[in-house]
Amino acid sequence: MNHLQLFNNIIKKRSFLCVGLDTEIEKLPASILNSENPVLEFNKRIIDATHKYAVACKPNVAFYEYSGVKGWITLQETVKYIRKNYPDIFIIADAKRGDIGNTSKMYAKAFFENMDCDAVTVAPYMGEDSVTPFLSYSQKWAILLALTSNKGADDFQYHNEDGIRLFERVLTLSQKWGNTDNLMYVVGATRARMLKDIRKIVPEHFLLIPGVGAQGGSLAEVAKYGMTNKCGLLVNSSRGIIFADSTENFDKIAGQKAQEIQAEMDMYLKEKNLVG
Amino acid sequence: MNHLQLFNNIIKKRSFLCVGLDTEIEKLPASILNSENPVLEFNKRIIDATHKYAVACKPNVAFYEYSGVKGWITLQETVKYIRKNYPDIFIIADAKRGDIGNTSKMYAKAFFENMDCDAVTVAPYMGEDSVTPFLSYSQKWAILLALTSNKGADDFQYHNEDGIRLFERVLTLSQKWGNTDNLMYVVGATRARMLKDIRKIVPEHFLLIPGVGAQGGSLAEVAKYGMTNKCGLLVNSSRGIIFADSTENFDKIAGQKAQEIQAEMDMYLKEKNLVG
Repeated sequence: MNHLQLFNNIIKKRSFLCVGLDTEIEKLPASILNSENPVLEFNKRIIDATHKYAVACKPNVAFYEYSGVKGWITLQETVKYIRKNYPDIFIIADAKRGDIGNTSKMYAKAFFENMDCDAVTVAPYMGEDSVTPFLSYSQKWAILLALTSNKGADDFQYHNEDGIRLFERVLTLSQKWGNTDNLMYVVGATRARMLKDIRKIVPEHFLLIPGVGAQGGSLAEVAKYGMTNKCGLLVNSSRGIIFADSTENFDKIAGQKAQEIQAEMDMYLKEKNLVG
Repeated sequence: MNHLQLFNNIIKKRSFLCVGLDTEIEKLPASILNSENPVLEFNKRIIDATHKYAVACKPNVAFYEYSGVKGWITLQETVKYIRKNYPDIFIIADAKRGDIGNTSKMYAKAFFENMDCDAVTVAPYMGEDSVTPFLSYSQKWAILLALTSNKGADDFQYHNEDGIRLFERVLTLSQKWGNTDNLMYVVGATRARMLKDIRKIVPEHFLLIPGVGAQGGSLAEVAKYGMTNKCGLLVNSSRGIIFADSTENFDKIAGQKAQEIQAEMDMYLKEKNLVG
């Protein structure tokens, strides 16, 4: 999927929502625990209930990896299910990978070839040769960490050389490695006011925005400071949607929560005259 | 394993070698391709042949993950085999993980609970709460990226605020999160002369040093600038050992290569009066 196709899906669905599949087994509704693979069953029902209101979904790889082989089976089956049933959903492997060139190449194979994800999140610490292997695939994306939503973002991301903070250097330098069709950036919703500065450096790139909902970020501020004339935003919500309810109606409630966010997003898209 | 136990193993084996299991299936000797799981079989024979000369081994997770579930089975079986047969080998999952707190916690579970690794490499970009979940296990270690061996290290790791470079800030700040029994740092052998500066900040912590061999780093310089009175070094070699030979004698040759490095290490340990 390229930049324009993603934008077209946003217009069609009047939504720039990404549903985060941080599927923690301890939080699953009791009603689902008897199924053969409760995490997979949960993911399927969440996607079935929310896909109309979302353009993307983002499995958080750690929540699968922690149970080893079994978790990786669930992750692969989840991606397969989405790809088969909802081919317009943009699938992001939230993996925060990144290593020397020959190793990043293997991570790119894992998520783009072995699994058919559209994008993978990448940590920038090791620089250019750790990122470019993810950029060599047609219609696939690297989503580079810039300014993250957590408290620890303050530790290194603002490290300031002559007025240029580290996250700004990441944004500036990495633009030379990719383009608006294969490179996005992570900017936490809890840093929404920084989006004004960030848009001066990356006026057109898509941004993946986590931190709305449980982490306290404001969707209104994200839209105000971050939206471009091609939307340019994917806003993620995980716990606020998928664990909104713990009864057997969890999927119905997840669908309602996703629809509420979509309705708010529709409003911001209208304000920007991107939808009628 | 704690700092002192690791040091005692180094003295016993007169070696601070770590064997990197970057087991690329395309590079395996033809003679092994008929086995049921060639990568696992290769790893077993490499470990059998090299364990006498090494104190640590380091599977590079990407080289397993790229083939999905099958690769994760091989990774788990490799770790199990080492743990069972060579309990004194320090096992490092070279995974470069790191995410917000609740997610790093899941990665820590993956490598410390689901697999029984001793250590996992961690990327520092997201700061304190992305690292501390790896530090909450007794006898387990986080190995934080400081100054890496690749060309891309120049892109961000030297970003300089008032004379403090980013990798120096990582070293300084992170010392408050852990101690010399649960925290090590990655410093590339290609940056060996920087070890003098680095030892001023972390005089006692163990350092994991990749980049000797195929990447061109010098073991002599690493020992000269980086060795402490508890050795404080784990030097990794991957391709230079495991793919030194492609005949059916690959394991014998790998053992010889490991022994050559061990002999050189013995010399440096003697020079430092750490062994007799």
